[in-house]
Amino acid sequence: MSVPTDRYVCELTFFVRYAETDQMGIVHHSNYLVYCEELRSQYARDKGTNYADYEKAGLALAVSEINLRFISPAVYGQQILMKGWVVELKSRRMTFGYEISNPDTGQMHVTGTTSHISIDREGKVARIPQAWVERWTAN
Amino acid sequence: MSVPTDRYVCELTFFVRYAETDQMGIVHHSNYLVYCEELRSQYARDKGTNYADYEKAGLALAVSEINLRFISPAVYGQQILMKGWVVELKSRRMTFGYEISNPDTGQMHVTGTTSHISIDREGKVARIPQAWVERWTAN
Amino acid sequence: MSVPTDRYVCELTFFVRYAETDQMGIVHHSNYLVYCEELRSQYARDKGTNYADYEKAGLALAVSEINLRFISPAVYGQQILMKGWVVELKSRRMTFGYEISNPDTGQMHVTGTTSHISIDREGKVARIPQAWVERWTAN
Amino acid sequence: MSVPTDRYVCELTFFVRYAETDQMGIVHHSNYLVYCEELRSQYARDKGTNYADYEKAGLALAVSEINLRFISPAVYGQQILMKGWVVELKSRRMTFGYEISNPDTGQMHVTGTTSHISIDREGKVARIPQAWVERWTAN
Repeated sequence: MSVPTDRYVCELTFFVRYAETDQMGIVHHSNYLVYCEELRSQYARDKGTNYADYEKAGLALAVSEINLRFISPAVYGQQILMKGWVVELKSRRMTFGYEISNPDTGQMHVTGTTSHISIDREGKVARIPQAWVERWTAN
Repeated sequence: MSVPTDRYVCELTFFVRYAETDQMGIVHHSNYLVYCEELRSQYARDKGTNYADYEKAGLALAVSEINLRFISPAVYGQQILMKGWVVELKSRRMTFGYEISNPDTGQMHVTGTTSHISIDREGKVARIPQAWVERWTAN
Repeated sequence: MSVPTDRYVCELTFFVRYAETDQMGIVHHSNYLVYCEELRSQYARDKGTNYADYEKAGLALAVSEINLRFISPAVYGQQILMKGWVVELKSRRMTFGYEISNPDTGQMHVTGTTSHISIDREGKVARIPQAWVERWTAN
Repeated sequence: MSVPTDRYVCELTFFVRYAETDQMGIVHHSNYLVYCEELRSQYARDKGTNYADYEKAGLALAVSEINLRFISPAVYGQQILMKGWVVELKSRRMTFGYEISNPDTGQMHVTGTTSHISIDREGKVARIPQAWVERWTAN
C-alpha cells in the first residue's frame, strides 16, 4: 500500500511527546493508534467540520479492525509526519490508510489501516449521513 | 502524612506495565494518577460496591486537586503496593490519601492526595448520597 | 483463529481502569495493545522468569506487526480475561495470539496477534537465546 | 499564582486528542501532566535547544513534586492553550508554573506547578549545567 494520488491525503506534523516513549527509548507502539486517531480528527477539520459533531449527532465511528506494520522506531526529539486517507467508504463502514514517517529524514516508521463501523448511541450499526460521506470523500 | 490507624486503608498490589515506563527507564509520573484512581476503584469494590454505580446514578467525582511527592522511581519488573484512605469527607467533596511503594523492598515511591467534588450530569456540585458516605467511611 | 489446545495458554484477569475509557463510554482501543503486552509479561512470569531480564541481557522484542479485530466493547466496572499463546517462534522472531473477553459473561471483545523481532541494543536483529526459546515454548 | 510579567512565558496551542477523554466526556486529569511536560519540551525548543540533548549529556530532570488545581474540564473538539514559565531555578532543581486554558473562550482549566531535580544516569542529584541554566532563565 502506498499514498494514493487520486484522493485527498490529510497531513499532520507534530512532535513526539516524552510520555510516549518507553524504556526501549522509542515511541511505545500503542501511541501510533493515538496518532492515527488524531490524523482522523485533523481530516475532519480539514474538511471544515469536527468529529465531535458526529458524536453530537448521536453517532460514532467504532474501531472494528487495526493492522499496523512497524518499520523503524520514532524517538523523542523528532517530529512525526502523518499522512492519512480514506481507503474505502461504504454506507456503514470505512477504512483509513496511514503512513507515519520522520519529516526530516523521510524514514518510514509505521504503515497500516484502521477500519470503522458507524454506530448509534445504542451501539447498533447506523448509516453514515450523506453530508459526512461527502466530507470524507471530497478531494 | 502517614497511613492512618483509625480508619479503613485499602490495599492493592499489581505489576508495573511495560507501557507505563518512559525512556528514563522508570514509571512515567503521569501513571501514578492512574494508580491512585485504580486504588479508589478498589476501595469501592472492597466496600461491596462499584464506582461505576456512582455514575449510573447520574453522579461523578470530579478531580479538583492533586498533590504528589515523588521519592524514588518504580521500574518495570517490580510490583506496586498502593495504600489509600479517606482523608476527609464532606457533604459534596472528599480527599483521598495515598502511599505508593514497592512491596518487596518497602521502598517508598510516591505519597500524596487527590481531592474530588461530587457533581451531577450537568457538572453542578451535588451532594454525595448517604449510602456512599457510609461506604467510604466504614471501617 | 481460536485458542490452541496443543500448547501453553497464559491467562490473566484484571479490572478495566477508569483512565482506559473514552467519551464513547468504552475502553479506548489503544489500551488493548497494553493489555496484550501485559499478557506477554505474565507469560514470562508464568515460566519462572521476567521479561525485564530479557532487556537486562541486552536484548528486546520489538513489535513488528499488530492485527486486532474488535468484536464488542469492554466497559469500566467489568473485568478483562486475557488469553495469550505463542503462535509461532523462529530464531529471531515470534508471534503471539490473543483472545480478550469478559470472564463474567463470556462475551468476546477482541482477538488478534502481535509479531515481534528480537533486537540488540543497537537495534539489529539478534537471535533469541535458547533458554528463552524453551521458556516460551514450554507446555 | 498568575502568569509572571518579568520572565519568559512559553505558549503552546494544540487540539485535545480523542484518546485523552474519559467516560465523563472530559479530558482525563492524568493528561494534564503530559500537557505540562510537552510545554517544557516546547520551552526548550523556544530557546533553541531540545530536552533530548539534556539526556544525551547523561542528565535528566526527574519530577519531584506536582501540584495541580482543576477549575473546569476541557473537552474533545477544543484547543488547549498552555502557558508555562520557570518559577524557580536553583543549582540542582527547578520549578515550572502553568496555566492551561481554552484559547477560544478564555476559560481556565488547570493551574499548577511541577518541580524537578537534575539527576545523572545513576539517579544521583547533579548540577544543572550553566548553558541550560541560561536557556531556562533567558527572557
